[in-house]
Amino acid sequence: MNPSLPTEIRALVFDVFGTVVDWRSSIIAEGRALGGRLGPDADWPALADAWRAGYFGSMAQVAKGELPWMTIDALHRRVLDELLPRFGLAALDEAARDHLNRAWHRLAPWPDSVAGLARLRSRYVTATLSNGNVSLLVNMAKHAGLPWDCVLSAELFGRFKPDPEVYLGAARLLGFAPPQLMMVAAHPSDLAAARRAGLKTAYIPRPDEYGPGGWMEPVGDRVFDLVAPDLRALADQLGVP
Amino acid sequence: MNPSLPTEIRALVFDVFGTVVDWRSSIIAEGRALGGRLGPDADWPALADAWRAGYFGSMAQVAKGELPWMTIDALHRRVLDELLPRFGLAALDEAARDHLNRAWHRLAPWPDSVAGLARLRSRYVTATLSNGNVSLLVNMAKHAGLPWDCVLSAELFGRFKPDPEVYLGAARLLGFAPPQLMMVAAHPSDLAAARRAGLKTAYIPRPDEYGPGGWMEPVGDRVFDLVAPDLRALADQLGVP
Repeated sequence: MNPSLPTEIRALVFDVFGTVVDWRSSIIAEGRALGGRLGPDADWPALADAWRAGYFGSMAQVAKGELPWMTIDALHRRVLDELLPRFGLAALDEAARDHLNRAWHRLAPWPDSVAGLARLRSRYVTATLSNGNVSLLVNMAKHAGLPWDCVLSAELFGRFKPDPEVYLGAARLLGFAPPQLMMVAAHPSDLAAARRAGLKTAYIPRPDEYGPGGWMEPVGDRVFDLVAPDLRALADQLGVP
Repeated sequence: MNPSLPTEIRALVFDVFGTVVDWRSSIIAEGRALGGRLGPDADWPALADAWRAGYFGSMAQVAKGELPWMTIDALHRRVLDELLPRFGLAALDEAARDHLNRAWHRLAPWPDSVAGLARLRSRYVTATLSNGNVSLLVNMAKHAGLPWDCVLSAELFGRFKPDPEVYLGAARLLGFAPPQLMMVAAHPSDLAAARRAGLKTAYIPRPDEYGPGGWMEPVGDRVFDLVAPDLRALADQLGVP
């Protein structure tokens, strides 16, 4: 690590789904709670994975112009409505679908997230930089107690990561040059795009994102400024008590 | 007051300069600290008032298209550079001008603001809705300990209050209908514009904004949903312990 890194950096911007919150366990738990009221259990782990995969597919369609711009809430709902019949849940009514879709506003943080963010915030400006829409991120922060200085979202720029404008727009709104921002994420492709836009990068592998022993995005030949196992360890590496 | 008001409202959006922070005393104090290092004191109260007035004038020019869009930081600096010679401060160098301009990032809250906001945040989504740029508002919140859920700014919409798109854009980003938002401000014209956009309104008169016995924007025939002398009293009126 470059010894001058902690003082050059002024703001840390965080990917959220998978990096700060454990979306998969949360969605499975919300699904099971809902499914238990409906009768026989659906395969909620498989539904959670298919939902997440469908979200990436829909986001790519938006990026290519095959779908109009819409928020992640709208994308999530679109994917959910497609999936429910395949999982024996076609009977879910509008209120239940809306409740389930908003489970993404109620995701639980990884065990280190709140304490790590609080420490990092004591020295740096801390902001989300997620493809999740602003209201989702605000509701999640209130629900999970995530101490952001600022909620930044792809929604503010009308395009999704990894579009460079999202990273550059975050730097512009926070009033810093791109190298004064460090992107913190569990996904090498997100960090590679941030790096191409001039940001510093911190890789936080989250091996349990897709469940114990589950899939992880390969690192390939990507290089990061920092690698830390969690957000408390990131604070340690940056020398923030 | 409408007894159902507290439950209909989901988010409170706050004007900041004058409503939450005491810009005038802060600018005078920063100016005097700077002036003391330079030699004879300038008339900092008059400079603060002229600076604020010049800001309103420049913002109106942007709204009319006579000036290009720029952030409040840029507007403040433009006005400051015009004013300094008139106050015997033409010798202020670039570093001192930049430091003084960023005094707007370091404004002190009114005595009730931090405690009042913390209470209100326990029930409602709380966000800035200021013409100040995002970085100014983020830095101010860190400096003053203002506990926002979300920093919203005219900058996100490329136009200044009282343009209706600023109020409607805040509702859209927070995921609520306009009547589920309450605009909280010390300035009747801001509240009148929010009301025309469909928001609820809370008027917080700040008789000391322009100094003891100083100017206040006339209320005229404007009607507000709530009137409270400060943010703690607003929490009382909304029944938030």
